[in-house]
Amino acid sequence: MTKQLMECVPNFSEGRRAEVIEAIVHPFRKRKGCALLDYRADVDHNRLVVSLAGEARPIQEALLEAAGVAISHIDMERHRGGHPRVGAVDVIPFIPLQNMTMEECVKLARSFGRRYYEETGVPVYFYEEAAVRPERKRLEVIRKGQYEALKDEITKPERHPDVGEAKLHPSAGATVIGARKFLIAFNVNLGTDDLQVAREIAKAVRSSSGGLSHVKGMGLALESRGLVQVSMNITDFEKNGLYQVLELVRMEARRWGVPVVETEIYGMVPAAALLNSASSSMQIAGFDPNQVIELRLLQMLRDEEA
Amino acid sequence: MTKQLMECVPNFSEGRRAEVIEAIVHPFRKRKGCALLDYRADVDHNRLVVSLAGEARPIQEALLEAAGVAISHIDMERHRGGHPRVGAVDVIPFIPLQNMTMEECVKLARSFGRRYYEETGVPVYFYEEAAVRPERKRLEVIRKGQYEALKDEITKPERHPDVGEAKLHPSAGATVIGARKFLIAFNVNLGTDDLQVAREIAKAVRSSSGGLSHVKGMGLALESRGLVQVSMNITDFEKNGLYQVLELVRMEARRWGVPVVETEIYGMVPAAALLNSASSSMQIAGFDPNQVIELRLLQMLRDEEA
Repeated sequence: MTKQLMECVPNFSEGRRAEVIEAIVHPFRKRKGCALLDYRADVDHNRLVVSLAGEARPIQEALLEAAGVAISHIDMERHRGGHPRVGAVDVIPFIPLQNMTMEECVKLARSFGRRYYEETGVPVYFYEEAAVRPERKRLEVIRKGQYEALKDEITKPERHPDVGEAKLHPSAGATVIGARKFLIAFNVNLGTDDLQVAREIAKAVRSSSGGLSHVKGMGLALESRGLVQVSMNITDFEKNGLYQVLELVRMEARRWGVPVVETEIYGMVPAAALLNSASSSMQIAGFDPNQVIELRLLQMLRDEEA
Repeated sequence: MTKQLMECVPNFSEGRRAEVIEAIVHPFRKRKGCALLDYRADVDHNRLVVSLAGEARPIQEALLEAAGVAISHIDMERHRGGHPRVGAVDVIPFIPLQNMTMEECVKLARSFGRRYYEETGVPVYFYEEAAVRPERKRLEVIRKGQYEALKDEITKPERHPDVGEAKLHPSAGATVIGARKFLIAFNVNLGTDDLQVAREIAKAVRSSSGGLSHVKGMGLALESRGLVQVSMNITDFEKNGLYQVLELVRMEARRWGVPVVETEIYGMVPAAALLNSASSSMQIAGFDPNQVIELRLLQMLRDEEA
């Protein structure tokens, strides 16, 4: 029996005080079954994004410890930053990676949410796949008006939390917990300085204007390089493969007579996303991830540990 | 400090007696630091090919144990099979995978060869990168005439072993030990039943007739499917990437008006070969394998174990 593997990307409302950032991250270090893949603090956003991978139990224990630190050090009454937020521990998404269904991740998010409230007293909203109210699938709906507005509006029935009383924690606000698919940040840089081209291509590719169902995208100027960029999030790489998305961008770019100069994958990516893309572009039939030496070794080491 | 990772693919001259095959493979099972990736016995070849990955020391210990079993059970005087061979333990190549140079692999092959002779009494020839005599880089040169011819010719200076006396082990023959790069078996199936097309494309692509330096290839008919195949070995995927090889085949196939129906990767493949191909076909700039979650987890688990 192979162990389940998940990702978790908790967001904390602290991107400036180095000692607080280190204290929050500390519970994720050197913990068996919970690997700290990455953490990035953004000064302008005043926000810390942590990437974890591992097993449900150690990740949850570490989250509760880190949340305790964040809650005791962050005062939402005084927090300022460029990124929307409702709490000291702002968002905690659980993401299935291996041998785990979305249903299992949803169950886990909900039970964790209840335990989280019991141990911290911070009210919880469930979002994305774990949403209990359909409109709360979208994080924007829950975070509307941010901490400052929610403080008053939480008493309204439509803004009641899913777990806990209808009032924010006095300093830590609320926390949004959920389950979602892995999100890949994928950019395509185009050999033109005409921003309109990137905007038109983004429009053709993204779901909101009729493109692929699991692609979000916008056009940006890369001024220092004299290029433009189609900046995308792929929210379901199994349905909208990286390679398919790129081919669609290439097709649209040809229409404008503009070359694709290069692409970028920003941040972490599951092996499957790249293996599927290699299989597509190379027409590999019957490819099995077990053929990849490193994936076999990983599975063996994780099984040994059990 | 991240641990070194190597592959090792020992070949044994036994492909028929199930109990002997199991006894040979047994030392490779459940050994810390030595993962048994795969083993395949071929009845016609009367040969067993084992794929291992892990660290030098446990792999070497397991090899000596398995060689002891093979030497005590296989009598080369009575061995018959379709594949060229000179010994009960026929070939042992060491292959660098991670954090290991070819030079380190060569050193290891040579020191292992000396220890192997001391413990088994079986004379050793060094081949490929570990060859001491330049002509012995090529396995065919060492195996010329196979066990039966080598038995007499070993006394000639040009056929003396690199380690040991100039006579074969009375039942186990000799063993060829070396270091080489990872070999990928890569096939491209073409939508035609014209074998000549596959042969012409193989000729255009392989090094022996002026194509890519690290590609071997031949044309085959897939009769039951009405297709033909360009069957290739890529002996250095860092120099001749999978995707580049495929694009060259595609280009040649266009010349014949023949479509590429599908491709196949046969057996194990290092993650880097597919990641490099994805990076090429998708024009990914500045891609870092550390962005791949599973590769990060593998590295962490192996570091933890240290």
